[in-house]
Amino acid sequence: MALIDQYKDTLNAAIAANYSRNYFSAFPESPKAYSETGMEDALKWFEKVKTEGHFHELTQTSTQYVGQEVSPFTQSGLNIKYPVNLLTDYISNAQRAQKQWKTISVENRAAILMSALDNFKARFFDVAVATMHTTGQAFMMSFQASGPHAADRALESIAMGYDLLHRIPESVHWIKPMGKYDINIQKTFKAIGKGINVVIGCSTFPVWNTLPGVFAGLITGNPVIVKPHQGGILPIAIVVAEIQNALKAHNVDPLLIQLAADEADKPIAKILAEHPDVKIIDYTGNSKFGTYLESIPNKVVFTEKAGVNSVILDSVKELKGVADNIAFAGSLYSGQMCTAPQNIFIPESGIETAEGRITYAEVVEAIKTAVNNISTNPKMAGGVLGAIQNPLTLDRVKTTESSAQSNIQTAGGVENAEFPNARTSSPLIMELKAEDYDHYSEELFGPIMIVIKTKSTEQSVEMAQKLAFEKGAISCGLYCTDEVLKMSILEKMEEACVPVSINYTGMSIFMNQNAAFSDFHVTGGNPAGNATFTDYAFISRRFSWVGHKEMV
Amino acid sequence: MALIDQYKDTLNAAIAANYSRNYFSAFPESPKAYSETGMEDALKWFEKVKTEGHFHELTQTSTQYVGQEVSPFTQSGLNIKYPVNLLTDYISNAQRAQKQWKTISVENRAAILMSALDNFKARFFDVAVATMHTTGQAFMMSFQASGPHAADRALESIAMGYDLLHRIPESVHWIKPMGKYDINIQKTFKAIGKGINVVIGCSTFPVWNTLPGVFAGLITGNPVIVKPHQGGILPIAIVVAEIQNALKAHNVDPLLIQLAADEADKPIAKILAEHPDVKIIDYTGNSKFGTYLESIPNKVVFTEKAGVNSVILDSVKELKGVADNIAFAGSLYSGQMCTAPQNIFIPESGIETAEGRITYAEVVEAIKTAVNNISTNPKMAGGVLGAIQNPLTLDRVKTTESSAQSNIQTAGGVENAEFPNARTSSPLIMELKAEDYDHYSEELFGPIMIVIKTKSTEQSVEMAQKLAFEKGAISCGLYCTDEVLKMSILEKMEEACVPVSINYTGMSIFMNQNAAFSDFHVTGGNPAGNATFTDYAFISRRFSWVGHKEMV
Repeated sequence: MALIDQYKDTLNAAIAANYSRNYFSAFPESPKAYSETGMEDALKWFEKVKTEGHFHELTQTSTQYVGQEVSPFTQSGLNIKYPVNLLTDYISNAQRAQKQWKTISVENRAAILMSALDNFKARFFDVAVATMHTTGQAFMMSFQASGPHAADRALESIAMGYDLLHRIPESVHWIKPMGKYDINIQKTFKAIGKGINVVIGCSTFPVWNTLPGVFAGLITGNPVIVKPHQGGILPIAIVVAEIQNALKAHNVDPLLIQLAADEADKPIAKILAEHPDVKIIDYTGNSKFGTYLESIPNKVVFTEKAGVNSVILDSVKELKGVADNIAFAGSLYSGQMCTAPQNIFIPESGIETAEGRITYAEVVEAIKTAVNNISTNPKMAGGVLGAIQNPLTLDRVKTTESSAQSNIQTAGGVENAEFPNARTSSPLIMELKAEDYDHYSEELFGPIMIVIKTKSTEQSVEMAQKLAFEKGAISCGLYCTDEVLKMSILEKMEEACVPVSINYTGMSIFMNQNAAFSDFHVTGGNPAGNATFTDYAFISRRFSWVGHKEMV
Repeated sequence: MALIDQYKDTLNAAIAANYSRNYFSAFPESPKAYSETGMEDALKWFEKVKTEGHFHELTQTSTQYVGQEVSPFTQSGLNIKYPVNLLTDYISNAQRAQKQWKTISVENRAAILMSALDNFKARFFDVAVATMHTTGQAFMMSFQASGPHAADRALESIAMGYDLLHRIPESVHWIKPMGKYDINIQKTFKAIGKGINVVIGCSTFPVWNTLPGVFAGLITGNPVIVKPHQGGILPIAIVVAEIQNALKAHNVDPLLIQLAADEADKPIAKILAEHPDVKIIDYTGNSKFGTYLESIPNKVVFTEKAGVNSVILDSVKELKGVADNIAFAGSLYSGQMCTAPQNIFIPESGIETAEGRITYAEVVEAIKTAVNNISTNPKMAGGVLGAIQNPLTLDRVKTTESSAQSNIQTAGGVENAEFPNARTSSPLIMELKAEDYDHYSEELFGPIMIVIKTKSTEQSVEMAQKLAFEKGAISCGLYCTDEVLKMSILEKMEEACVPVSINYTGMSIFMNQNAAFSDFHVTGGNPAGNATFTDYAFISRRFSWVGHKEMV
């Protein structure tokens, strides 16, 4: 039996889902689907790693080690060190591994990468605990985002690569009729990986945002160097180690993927990115560094940068469910998602509901109440809000709050029975007017929601569109019960390539969420970035078709 | 009957061919397939336009006109002027047209663009004459490259756009099972064009190199502004006018495509490219300007820049057919093709043939003879070599010849009975050694062939690969009868993403030729550029998928 056979059904189902956009998942999102003692075992493992002080799982070794991670839940250092290598070693290791990898068939590459996902799956709980104590995500989000959801996105990259690499035949006998005779040419086509793929991670979603690029790079024949954020190494280090294990198990050079950890005072992202042998760069993070990366000549660069996401409130059936939905979307992981809403546009004349018109003040009050219902509910607050990854985010909340002219709700600590030392903040809700564009047009990353009073829905849309055009946007919430108006608003947001979540209500699904196989994440049509998970261009730009032609 | 129905078979055949890589052409390449009086009519039309002094076919009008074209065959000015508009008008016209175009279904867009190709087909002879008297291509190449071959490449862009825009459904009812309940979301997907697409043409292939970008831009929902080279406006102006006619015939704003001609002392390519509303740029031309274009932030840029193409001679069955093939490839249109061979690597120990070993000197002599057989044959010379587009190219030949240490064959005039005033040059054949890398590593555009004496085939390959890595290459010729050695050489050239033509012999097919639907033109894997005709990325990067989600 060929290696690929056991994975073919899953790959084909994934490809079919990516085409049909129907719901699909190869990795159930509930922790219960995996292991009963998973959490317990993971906590023991985590303690062991911290005690050892070194992460031993990587194939890479070194005499030099770095590591400065701090848990947002305990605010103490993890004390885990990771091996670091010389730049020249990363590059030469990658090049050596690529020479072998490119000789391996697409089928076998796909099978080996699928087996890496099997390894990864067995570590979901470890990765979840590592994600909690680096990102500050509560357990459920840590498990889902860094585990099954990330694995589904990784599978999506493998599957789309598998699909694209089979798009044209390996060889064809090309016959051109010339009238009196034919020209006979035997053509062969090879997909050649463009070269070393560096994937630069972020501190808030160290696995979810990293894996699409990692697996897209690998399936298309490229060696990968993962440069994690200094604040979020452990979760992705586990996955890198498990990919290395899968490679070793199939007699492939494990250094086809390497972890290149660094420390804040000696950063290496720029040095890696500018290296002439690095041909592909994936990046998630701030816009300034992302824009710099995009400007480096002769690289294929995929970025997810900052966006400023809007909610447009025009009319609703029932306010409470809407307020709950917006409050949850803004509170989830304390607004530290690239898809979190920041600006909530409400007309000064209020909004229509099935029960009649509601004033602006009533809408604001409903949102405030809904936010407080989450942040002051001891059974809910910790699980929804999690902790604040970066102390600077907390500083931003405080500075913003103190300089704001009008605060609807000030920020405060969030009770967390399990982690009393957690770095937390309930959402700050500010109020601004439409004309205060300069104040709400910057991404205020973290638990900061801004209610913006506009002259009309038309002005709300105008400002949301302007924001998307100028600053970028990854998501948008729209509440509108008028079909004609709704279509015209969608058209406006489409012009800025912003996907809109329409009339989301209640507590089951939120504008923050983009599902693998169905939702393109980041459209590439506005300044928020150009890495679209998982569009064809996200895969096809990583390799070249090279066709040789021989006269027969 | 829907508009698309009459074109569906052709589109589907084109898509199938692009997948299968089999031979396909919707436009026969023989002039005889079109019109018996085509050439006669075209010459009359050409005289009329020159007499009028203005090109009247465009929908665009203006009070300002430019035009400085000179025929390489007569060396006199064409005296044809083209309307020019203000930059702000080009942009606002494009944006207004886009608003309508994006509301038109993919089916109707494809049908209208196919009807534009019908219009274009009826003008193949006019375009051929215009191409002759701007590029210096002989009639047959003018007809084929600017007519049927360009139309096939245009069809390929339309077909692949049609395919990609149908890749995912317009809407899907997405159901996520949550155990006790389901989440129901109605999703809609729209492909949104990224914005204005500027296509910057070159003087040697003003139609063939321009149309893939034009039709890729249009099918994916973008308005197009064609900025032709100052030396090659008329051929593409006809095509732009015919696309405008097709748009008008279907009640679409014809200014969806505009011609933006300019003059050498007031160039507008840079101003257009840097305009913030221009989102996509296609470019064919020199490397310096191409590299500058690639560096402009927030643009999708497709380039075909310069490459330095090699022929590697190791062993042949029979020398004469090989020498003929190389000589023809280097002589065709006087080396003014991006795919023309420049450097011919020959080992100092000579090459193997079926009849035994032949010395280096004998190989060189055979190539020289074959070149002279073309350039001194009055029945053949004019038709193969054509004329020299740019006087600077002729200067380059003279300067190179006079500074060369060793010339195997000096350049000279080419007899052309039809056009005694033609600007011509037979190929200069220089001789260099492998170590003279600095001298043969620049693209010496035009009728300049360099024979390079190497220590061995191994060194030949090493230098050809180095050239491709450092300077780029679009084609490569390899002569090798040893299967094992051949495979190892292909592997080396693949690393630099160079497609290789193997053992081409005789006078029927040459390394210069890349066929639509089968050959990817420019791999994107070396410095010669990143515009791959017609890979998926060449289409998919021009639009974004925007998915809206509504709770059901």
